[in-house]
Amino acid sequence: MGVRETIEVTGHLMDSGILSRVLDDIRDYGGDYVIEQFDVGHDAHDPSSARIVIEAEDDASLQRLLMRLQTRGVNPIGEREAALATADRDGVLPDGFYSTTNLETRVRLDGAWHPVENPEMDCGLVVDESDDGGLRVRTVPMADVSEGMRIVVGAAGIEVVVPSQAPTSDAFASVGTDGGSDRPQTVIVRQVADGMKRVRAEGKRLLWVAGPGIVHTGAVPAMVALVRGGYVDVLFAGNALATYDIESALYGTSLGVDVATHGLEHGHEHHVRALNTIRKAGSIGDAVATGVLTSGIMHALVTHEKRYVLVGSVRDDGPLPDVHTDVIEGQRAMRAEVAGVGYCLMMATQLHSVATANILPATVPIVCVDINPSTVTKLADRGTSQGRGIVTDVGLFLEQLALELVADYRRT
Amino acid sequence: MGVRETIEVTGHLMDSGILSRVLDDIRDYGGDYVIEQFDVGHDAHDPSSARIVIEAEDDASLQRLLMRLQTRGVNPIGEREAALATADRDGVLPDGFYSTTNLETRVRLDGAWHPVENPEMDCGLVVDESDDGGLRVRTVPMADVSEGMRIVVGAAGIEVVVPSQAPTSDAFASVGTDGGSDRPQTVIVRQVADGMKRVRAEGKRLLWVAGPGIVHTGAVPAMVALVRGGYVDVLFAGNALATYDIESALYGTSLGVDVATHGLEHGHEHHVRALNTIRKAGSIGDAVATGVLTSGIMHALVTHEKRYVLVGSVRDDGPLPDVHTDVIEGQRAMRAEVAGVGYCLMMATQLHSVATANILPATVPIVCVDINPSTVTKLADRGTSQGRGIVTDVGLFLEQLALELVADYRRT
Amino acid sequence: MGVRETIEVTGHLMDSGILSRVLDDIRDYGGDYVIEQFDVGHDAHDPSSARIVIEAEDDASLQRLLMRLQTRGVNPIGEREAALATADRDGVLPDGFYSTTNLETRVRLDGAWHPVENPEMDCGLVVDESDDGGLRVRTVPMADVSEGMRIVVGAAGIEVVVPSQAPTSDAFASVGTDGGSDRPQTVIVRQVADGMKRVRAEGKRLLWVAGPGIVHTGAVPAMVALVRGGYVDVLFAGNALATYDIESALYGTSLGVDVATHGLEHGHEHHVRALNTIRKAGSIGDAVATGVLTSGIMHALVTHEKRYVLVGSVRDDGPLPDVHTDVIEGQRAMRAEVAGVGYCLMMATQLHSVATANILPATVPIVCVDINPSTVTKLADRGTSQGRGIVTDVGLFLEQLALELVADYRRT
Amino acid sequence: MGVRETIEVTGHLMDSGILSRVLDDIRDYGGDYVIEQFDVGHDAHDPSSARIVIEAEDDASLQRLLMRLQTRGVNPIGEREAALATADRDGVLPDGFYSTTNLETRVRLDGAWHPVENPEMDCGLVVDESDDGGLRVRTVPMADVSEGMRIVVGAAGIEVVVPSQAPTSDAFASVGTDGGSDRPQTVIVRQVADGMKRVRAEGKRLLWVAGPGIVHTGAVPAMVALVRGGYVDVLFAGNALATYDIESALYGTSLGVDVATHGLEHGHEHHVRALNTIRKAGSIGDAVATGVLTSGIMHALVTHEKRYVLVGSVRDDGPLPDVHTDVIEGQRAMRAEVAGVGYCLMMATQLHSVATANILPATVPIVCVDINPSTVTKLADRGTSQGRGIVTDVGLFLEQLALELVADYRRT
Repeated sequence: MGVRETIEVTGHLMDSGILSRVLDDIRDYGGDYVIEQFDVGHDAHDPSSARIVIEAEDDASLQRLLMRLQTRGVNPIGEREAALATADRDGVLPDGFYSTTNLETRVRLDGAWHPVENPEMDCGLVVDESDDGGLRVRTVPMADVSEGMRIVVGAAGIEVVVPSQAPTSDAFASVGTDGGSDRPQTVIVRQVADGMKRVRAEGKRLLWVAGPGIVHTGAVPAMVALVRGGYVDVLFAGNALATYDIESALYGTSLGVDVATHGLEHGHEHHVRALNTIRKAGSIGDAVATGVLTSGIMHALVTHEKRYVLVGSVRDDGPLPDVHTDVIEGQRAMRAEVAGVGYCLMMATQLHSVATANILPATVPIVCVDINPSTVTKLADRGTSQGRGIVTDVGLFLEQLALELVADYRRT
Repeated sequence: MGVRETIEVTGHLMDSGILSRVLDDIRDYGGDYVIEQFDVGHDAHDPSSARIVIEAEDDASLQRLLMRLQTRGVNPIGEREAALATADRDGVLPDGFYSTTNLETRVRLDGAWHPVENPEMDCGLVVDESDDGGLRVRTVPMADVSEGMRIVVGAAGIEVVVPSQAPTSDAFASVGTDGGSDRPQTVIVRQVADGMKRVRAEGKRLLWVAGPGIVHTGAVPAMVALVRGGYVDVLFAGNALATYDIESALYGTSLGVDVATHGLEHGHEHHVRALNTIRKAGSIGDAVATGVLTSGIMHALVTHEKRYVLVGSVRDDGPLPDVHTDVIEGQRAMRAEVAGVGYCLMMATQLHSVATANILPATVPIVCVDINPSTVTKLADRGTSQGRGIVTDVGLFLEQLALELVADYRRT
Repeated sequence: MGVRETIEVTGHLMDSGILSRVLDDIRDYGGDYVIEQFDVGHDAHDPSSARIVIEAEDDASLQRLLMRLQTRGVNPIGEREAALATADRDGVLPDGFYSTTNLETRVRLDGAWHPVENPEMDCGLVVDESDDGGLRVRTVPMADVSEGMRIVVGAAGIEVVVPSQAPTSDAFASVGTDGGSDRPQTVIVRQVADGMKRVRAEGKRLLWVAGPGIVHTGAVPAMVALVRGGYVDVLFAGNALATYDIESALYGTSLGVDVATHGLEHGHEHHVRALNTIRKAGSIGDAVATGVLTSGIMHALVTHEKRYVLVGSVRDDGPLPDVHTDVIEGQRAMRAEVAGVGYCLMMATQLHSVATANILPATVPIVCVDINPSTVTKLADRGTSQGRGIVTDVGLFLEQLALELVADYRRT
Repeated sequence: MGVRETIEVTGHLMDSGILSRVLDDIRDYGGDYVIEQFDVGHDAHDPSSARIVIEAEDDASLQRLLMRLQTRGVNPIGEREAALATADRDGVLPDGFYSTTNLETRVRLDGAWHPVENPEMDCGLVVDESDDGGLRVRTVPMADVSEGMRIVVGAAGIEVVVPSQAPTSDAFASVGTDGGSDRPQTVIVRQVADGMKRVRAEGKRLLWVAGPGIVHTGAVPAMVALVRGGYVDVLFAGNALATYDIESALYGTSLGVDVATHGLEHGHEHHVRALNTIRKAGSIGDAVATGVLTSGIMHALVTHEKRYVLVGSVRDDGPLPDVHTDVIEGQRAMRAEVAGVGYCLMMATQLHSVATANILPATVPIVCVDINPSTVTKLADRGTSQGRGIVTDVGLFLEQLALELVADYRRT
C-alpha cells in the first residue's frame, strides 16, 4: 500500500448508515483505513463527524476510491486545486476523468470554489469561460465531449454536498396527525398528493415518466384530469404509451376488458393504424389541430400546452412522428426539460424511468409506482435517498390521486 | 388397446375451447379417440354436440380417463348403474374409487338418478340411506371415510352437469353500458360490487378469505365498513390475519409506514404480546365482551355476529385460542360454513384461498385479488371457469370497493 | 349488418384450439358468423376443415376482421386479385393498407400468386418489379415507405400459410425415450441443445438475443464456450450487455459476489470507464485488435468472426461506438441479419427480445429464457406457437447448455 | 420522559450497520438516547464500543425497548437479577414476559449467569430446577406454558451474545482463490457445497426444508443422490412434497413436460390415488417395507434411515398418514429434530421455511433457494445475518449441487 488521503464526513453518520457504506466502499475498492478522529453526536439530534485516513495501492486507485466515496457525500480534507486535462478527440473523456455524482458539487479552480451548473451522474466535468470572463463548470455526457474541452481529472479539488435533509423527507413529511387510522396505501397516495401541491406552490415543475400500463389499467381519465388540473408540466415517455393512448382515443376499447389477463396483444393491428394515422397527420399536435385526435392524455397535453418528450426504443412500431428515434438526441431533449423540475413521478415504466433517474439531480424527489416490485426496487435503490418506491396498481393509484388533487374529478 | 366407451359432450364446444381440452386429456391419459358424430351449431348462438368413442388400454385406465373427462363436464352415454364397494378401514377409500369434481353431479343407483348433496372435488362418494328410506349420495373426504361405508367405484353411472352459463358471466355480466370510458380497474371493482349486491339480494351468503395483507395495506377501515354494511357473512383466515388485525387494534401502528418496503418483521414482539393478551382473555369473543378488543376486523365480525373460521399453519406463533390447530378439523369447520354461499372473495392469501377453492362447489363464483400474479393464476386456473383473477393492490381495491358499496364510507 | 365473406380453415382445428380463437376474434371485432360446413377429422390424426360465413357492418370492418383472422392462418375462399394503392408520402402507408402477419404469405396479382419475400408482422406489403420483369412482393415497415410505392390494401387476394407443424414441435420433439426419469429442467436444456444441433446441421444460423443478466449470473464462460463451439452465429443486444461484459473483462469482478442481492449498482463508475476505454480505442473490434480487450463474450465474437448488432436505448451511458443510437437504423441492421436464421435464443432481456420477435418470420423457433415469468409470458404468447418460454436461472441454464454442447467445456 | 437505562454495544459497529439499527429501534419505540461514550476501532480490524443511555416514557416501554435492542445483540450494563413471575394458567405467559430472540442468551439468577438451553425466538423463558438441584433456563413457546411455571419478566438480568462472526461468513468464506473467473451462480453452488462438507465434517447435521417445486423442476434424482451421499440428515416438509414425490414414483410422469407453464393442476386425480395408496399401506415406511413404494425422495429417506417431519396445512388432500395434522404438534416434532443441526437448506417453500426459521437458533446458517424473489427476501431478511438468499431455479441448483457433492452422480 502506498498513497493516502484524509477524508472527512459529517452528519447523522450512524443512524443514517452512511458510515457503514463508506467503510464497505473502502473495502470493496481494495483500500484500507484508519479512523483518526470520531466526534459522536451526543444526543439523538446532534450530527457526528469522522476524520478517516484512507489508503490505496496507487494514486489511480486512490482517486477512484475518492470518487466512489463522493457518491456518499464524503470529501477529502483540504483545499487543493482540481486538475484538468484536455479531451483530444470528440466523444472521449481524458484518462482518469472525474466521474460525476448527481449531488450538488463544487470544483476548486484558481483558488476559488465553482458550483457545477447541472449535476448529473456518470458524466465528466467540463471547465470553460463564462460570459463574464470567469470560470464555469458543467457536466458533460461522454457523447457530447468535443476535442479541446478542458475536463477535470482525479478527485482532488472537488466537493460534493449531501442534501442536509433527504429530499423525500421534505416531500413526504407533512402528513400530520389527521389520519390516525392504519391505512398505508391511501395515506401514501395523500402524501404524494401533498408533496405535489407543495412543489407546485413553490413554483417548481412536476415531471411525469409514464409507460403504457397507464392506458391498460384504465387510468387515462385520471391522468387527463391531472393534466387539466395543472399537475403535469412535462411528460417523458416512449412510443408505446403515446400510441396506446392514441389508439384508445381513435378506436375505443371494449368496456371492462380484463387487461390483467389479456395484456398487450401484438398483432392487434389497431395500433399500427393509429400510428399511420398520426404519421399521415404530420404530428400529434397536427392531429389535434385538425380534429383527428380529440381525447386522451396526449390530446390533453397538447391542448393544455404542456411539454412532452417521447424517446423511441428498438421494439417500436412506427414510430409516431414526435418520437426521437436517436436515443442520444432523446436524452438531450430530456435534459433540456429537467431545469426547474421539483418532483418526479414514475409510473409503470422501467426503461424511461431509469433513463430519467440517470439525468435528474439528487435534489429532485422521485416517486416510482409499479405493480412489479423489481422495477420499484431498481428505481428506489439509487445512490441517494432520493427515490421512494410504491408497489401498487398504477390504475387505482392514479384514480385515488385524481380524487385527492382534482376537486371536480368524480368517478362516473 | 382394448376397452372403449362412447361419450357425449354438448355446449359451446368450439368457442369455449372445451373440445380441445377434452382431446388433450385423452392424449395425456394415453387413450385414443374417434369422433363419431359432430353436430356443429349453425350460428354463433347455437350449441354444438359431439359423440366420441374413446379407447384405453384397460378398464382401470378407461375409468380414470372418464373421471378426468368429467372434470370437463363430459359424460358417458347410456344409463348404467353405478358400482359400489365397501370401505374396509377408516380413512381409506376402496381401490378404483370415483374421484369427484366440484360440479353438480348425479349417480344412478337402483335405476334412478340421485343428486350428490355437497359437490366437492377430490373426494369419494358415499351412498347411504336417507331418513325416508331412500338413497342419498354425498361427498366424503378421504380422512372422513369410515369402515363399512358404501363408496362409488369407477365412472359408470355418474353424470356431471356443467353450469349452463359460467358462474362468472352471471356474476359479472351486468356492467351494461353506463361506463363508457376506458377504465378497466375501476370498472372491475364496480363489477365485483354489482355481483356482491346481486348475490346478497338473492339471499345468499358472501364468503371472504383473507390474508394479513389486508392489514398491511391499510384496508382495515374499508373491511370494517364492509362488515358493517352487511357484505361479509363469513370469513376464512389464518392466525396471521387475525393476529395482525388485533395487534393493530391493541397497539396502533405509526401512520404512513411504508409497508411495501418494511414488510412483516418477525421478532417485533408486539404480535406475541397481542397473542398472549387474547389467550389470557380466553377467546376473541371474550376479548370483545370484556372491552379488551375494541376495534378492527375481528371486533367488527364479533359485534355484528358474523361467522369466522380460523385455521392454523405450521408457521404460527401463539396461536389465538380461536384457531383450529388441527388442519383436518379446520377443513371440517370450513365445510360447515359453505352451505348457502353465493360468492367468494379471496384477498391476499394463497394458502387459505386454495383450501377454500378445494371445498367450494363449481356454482360459487370466486374472485381472487392479489398483487402477486402467481397467486392469482393459481386460483383463476382451476378446472372450471369459476374463478376470476385480479392482479391489483388489495388495499386500494378494498378502498374502492367500500366506496362503491357502503354509502356512508368516506375517506377521512 | 351488411357485408359478408366466406372463409375456410383447415387443420387440427379442435385440439389446437384454433377454431375457438377464430370465433373469439369474430366476436371481438363485432362481427357475426354462420358455420356453413364442418368436416371433422374422424380420428385423432385426421385434420378437420370448416367453411364459415362471416359478416361485418361494413367493408372496412370486414377487411380488418379478415386481416385479424389471417393471424390465425385463416383465408378467404376464392382467388380474387389483391388491391393496390400508391403511397403519397414517405413514411405513411395508404389508408386501408394490409397489415402483415409473420406467416408465410402470398399475394394474388395479375392472376398469379406471388410469395412475400420476407414475412414480418405489422408491416405493409409493397409490390414492385423484380429484375426479370415480373412482380415481387415484400414487407415494408412503416418508416421505410417511400412516396410512390405500390402498397396492398384490404385483405382480398392474400393467403397465409400456417406451418403444417408448429415450429416448436419440430425443434423440440426428438427427446425420445432415453431419459426416463422425471427431470424436466435438465430435460428441457437437452431439448434446446438438440434443437440447436439439428438447426446447425441443416446449415441454418443460430441467433441469440441477450441481456446483461448473462454477465451478472456468471454465464460469461459458458457463453464464450458456446461462441467457440460454433453455436452463436449472430448476437442481438443492447449497450448494457456489451458494456458489462467488457467491464468485467477489463476490471474483473470479485469472486462470488452475490449479484442476486447486489444487482447492477448505478454510480459504480467502472462501467463508465469501460465505455470511455472502448470509445477511445475506436470500436470493440479495434479494442480487440490492439490488445485492449482480451476476454469475454464480445471478444469471442470478434475473434471468431461472428456477427453482432447492438442497438441502444434511452437509458444508455456512453454508448459503445458500435451501438446504433438510432433505433430505426438499429432495426434495419437487425433485419439484415435475419436471413438464414433457423433458431433464436432469447436470454434475460425483454426489450431486445420483443424487438427481435417483431421481425422474425413465424418459421423460426424461439426459446425465451428468463427468471422473470412476465418476460417469458410476453414472448411465449405471440400469435403463433413459435415461442417456447422457460422460466429459469439464465446462469445455470447456460452452464448446463455448455455442458451439453461443448465437449471440452469443464467447470474448473 | 422518565426511566433510563444504560446499554453497551461492542463489535464492528459501524461497518456492520448495527449501530444505525439500534438507533432506529430507539426512535421507532418512541425512546430517546444520549451517546455517553464511543470508542471507535482505530483501524479496519478493531472493534468499536459504545455506551448509550436510553430513555423511555415508563418502565414497561423501557423493558420492551430493551428486549427489542437485544435482538441486535445489545445488553444493558450491570449485573442485575432477572425478575420472575408465575404463569397462572396453561398456555398464557405472565404480563411483561421476556420475549426471546434466537441468539445465545444467559439469565442472571441467584447471582449467577445461566445459559438458555435452546434459543428460539418469540418464546418465553421458563426457570426450573435441574437434576442436580441447580437452576436451568429454557425457552417455552406460548402454547406449551403450564400453570405454575416460573417465567422471566422484563429485560433485566438477561444478556444475549451476538455471534462473534456471522454464521454465514463461517459457512461461506472459504471459497478461496481457485475460481478466478466471473461466474457467480456456479460459484455460489460451490460455496454451499463447501459449507455442507465442512458442517458434515464437524459432525453436525444437515437439515433440509423442501416444497413440491423439488419434484416439479425434476430435481428428484439429484435429491435422491444427495440423500444417498449422506447430505440429508433431516427433512422438514408438508404433505404436498411427499405426495407429489410419491405420485411421481407410483405413476411416473411424462418426459419433458413443461412444468413451468403447466404447473400443478388440481383435479388431476393421480395425487388423490397416491394418497389413498399410502393410507392403505399404513405409512410411508410401511409402503417401502411392503414394496409398494420403490423410488423417490421419501423412499430414499426411509431406506437410508434418515429423519423427516411432515406437517400439514389447511389446503391438504388426504393427508399422508405420516403428516402431523395438528400444527402445534408438528412444531414440537420439528423442535425435537433441531438439536445438532449445523446447516439448513430451504428449497422452494415459503410456509415450512418460515416455520423452520422461527425455531432455529441464530447459530445455524440458512441458505434459502427459490425462483420467487419475495420468498427469498422474506427468509434472508431475518433479524440476524444468519440467512443467505439465492434467487435461482431449484431444479438446476440441485442438479449442480449433486454434481459438486456426489462423486458418482452423472446425468444420464
